[in-house]
Amino acid sequence: MGNTVKQIAILGSTGSIGRQTLQVVRALPQQFRVVGLAAGKNLDLLAEQIKEFQPRFVYHQAKNAPARLAGAEYQFLPLEDIACHPQVDTVVIATSGKSGLLATLAAVRGGKNVALANKESLVMAGEIITSEAKSNAARILPIDSEHSAIWQCLEGEAQPPAQIILTASGGPFRNYSSAQLDGVTAEQALNHPSWQMGEKVTIDSATLMNKGLEIIEAHWLFNMPFDNIRVVIHPQSIIHSMVEFIDGSTKAQLSHPDMRLPIQYALSYPERLPNPELPRLDWTNLKELTFEQPDFDTFPCLRLAIEAGKMAGTFPAVLCAADEVAIELFLSKTIRFTDIASLVGKVLAEHQVITHPTLEQITAADAWARERVLKLAGEDNP
Amino acid sequence: MGNTVKQIAILGSTGSIGRQTLQVVRALPQQFRVVGLAAGKNLDLLAEQIKEFQPRFVYHQAKNAPARLAGAEYQFLPLEDIACHPQVDTVVIATSGKSGLLATLAAVRGGKNVALANKESLVMAGEIITSEAKSNAARILPIDSEHSAIWQCLEGEAQPPAQIILTASGGPFRNYSSAQLDGVTAEQALNHPSWQMGEKVTIDSATLMNKGLEIIEAHWLFNMPFDNIRVVIHPQSIIHSMVEFIDGSTKAQLSHPDMRLPIQYALSYPERLPNPELPRLDWTNLKELTFEQPDFDTFPCLRLAIEAGKMAGTFPAVLCAADEVAIELFLSKTIRFTDIASLVGKVLAEHQVITHPTLEQITAADAWARERVLKLAGEDNP
Repeated sequence: MGNTVKQIAILGSTGSIGRQTLQVVRALPQQFRVVGLAAGKNLDLLAEQIKEFQPRFVYHQAKNAPARLAGAEYQFLPLEDIACHPQVDTVVIATSGKSGLLATLAAVRGGKNVALANKESLVMAGEIITSEAKSNAARILPIDSEHSAIWQCLEGEAQPPAQIILTASGGPFRNYSSAQLDGVTAEQALNHPSWQMGEKVTIDSATLMNKGLEIIEAHWLFNMPFDNIRVVIHPQSIIHSMVEFIDGSTKAQLSHPDMRLPIQYALSYPERLPNPELPRLDWTNLKELTFEQPDFDTFPCLRLAIEAGKMAGTFPAVLCAADEVAIELFLSKTIRFTDIASLVGKVLAEHQVITHPTLEQITAADAWARERVLKLAGEDNP
Repeated sequence: MGNTVKQIAILGSTGSIGRQTLQVVRALPQQFRVVGLAAGKNLDLLAEQIKEFQPRFVYHQAKNAPARLAGAEYQFLPLEDIACHPQVDTVVIATSGKSGLLATLAAVRGGKNVALANKESLVMAGEIITSEAKSNAARILPIDSEHSAIWQCLEGEAQPPAQIILTASGGPFRNYSSAQLDGVTAEQALNHPSWQMGEKVTIDSATLMNKGLEIIEAHWLFNMPFDNIRVVIHPQSIIHSMVEFIDGSTKAQLSHPDMRLPIQYALSYPERLPNPELPRLDWTNLKELTFEQPDFDTFPCLRLAIEAGKMAGTFPAVLCAADEVAIELFLSKTIRFTDIASLVGKVLAEHQVITHPTLEQITAADAWARERVLKLAGEDNP
């Protein structure tokens, strides 16, 4: 990297990952310059961010955004145009849900470094995204702590790994029975023991759907067969994932659970940068790291995700869309916590798969799945 | 490496590391060819090894060895000549104690890949060995599980680490008091909980001198200041060591405690090779990894080693030599377990250091220290 300042665009700058990305940039002003900011909701925070970071390109989805953000000197551009703008080196895709998919596609087609926090891009369209990245010499730099850990463990290794071991905190309901899970409230589910995250990903962590989506992402990011990806519950969230090599050696990446580290690694790669704000592990206090097997029966979302990933085609998009809508229904108290998995399972069972789908077919499957979840939930809750 | 077979010389082939190196070669006959074998003691086993592996070069220190090993077609050569022979790609230095030092020096001067299991080489003459390795483009490939772990964690990293975390099993007397240690027998000390090793290194593990020597080795191997090398007790011996980077990220290398893995990694580097004989970690059974702080008061050898390493010059050679003789006295029941540390401490306190010593000065310090330990032990046990 030398003395050049990396030009960063942050899509989803007002969300949890976006705000933490800006913390990293704030801590390392000599290394990174924010040239693009885009947000979907929080217009006031976006205005503040524009004031502080003075980006060249801005996007917000509200129609009155250009008027409300007037004053500063920037160009208002569509999300995809920012994602592939020639002045951008690295695009941080920090939007949640489906909205990051098109931006990711634009960024990989533009041959960018794509620092990817959006899970749906690879889950819904992993085949398209990875193939476009390859054709356009774009590099996908995962921001998830688990995939960042795997990536760090693979650096410098000449051969592909024998096995990926994804660690999972187990979420707030780790030792709950299915019956106990029935009565879980949104407030309880939003109270994650080790990570501060957005609402959707926090609920996904509680159902273990999050880990299932990460398995599908790992499959695409590291070209790894599903049978060679294992999940181990590790409640302390210190080991963020592991890789086993063909000689039986295993590497793990450890740190305090703090998303700023994988964000910074994706931005600074292939270098690492000293950042006094990032916490260090304290070996005088760290007493134990424990491991358990995941409970596929109590947390069926994990199994559903692996099955959808293996069946491929439009199945993962359906999984993803059905899950997103089911979570909204749970957060609005329309359905119970355990209904999330059963609704997703029902929609997957009904789905007529399309193999090697186009983006349009993926989008259609997504729309169909959303509608089916609402329909099924309505039938159960008339 | 492609299709070329690596030509290996094993110095110390009848010891614990030597025999395990031959197990690795036996498992991977397409990859490795034994061209040299050398041993110091077990002539019968060496004769068997010669029969099986048909090396081109052989050495044994007994005067009648050439006569007793007659029959097979090989050349009898001095140890140092095997270490730097043009037909040798990788030299495994698996002799214990001081005897490996000259062989290591010959191998690095010959620009070889030096798979180094001998601790004394780097402890006694780290400055000379690393500087000669650099001048002659020799590569030192550590065989110790700890240094192999650090090496594996550093592969592919662009920058030097912020901190090395050496793990230690804590040995068989981990929770003993100093008073309890006084009464420890040789039989108890030779019964290590996790590793099968030679006698000297097993006692060194029980006193934690072994970990102290590894700190000095790590200092030289990875050019790391002593204050940036930390020891953490990890009784399960699954994490073999860790590296913390400047961004706060830590990498660990894990495996079952089995020396064949670091041996094979040193031989196959930069590739890894599949070897069905090497054990895999079983995540369905691995429940916890625990960590404790080392007790510098109860295990003073650890502190003595760090101090000797920091004071540098001839101090580490004195530490090493005094320790070796003290262990012999303990194994022959002449002194108590706790006398090992006190004798080493006394000899270090008496020593007049020579900074940046030559090999001759190191050898003289070694001889002086041995004599002093015997003298001091004799005074205490008249």
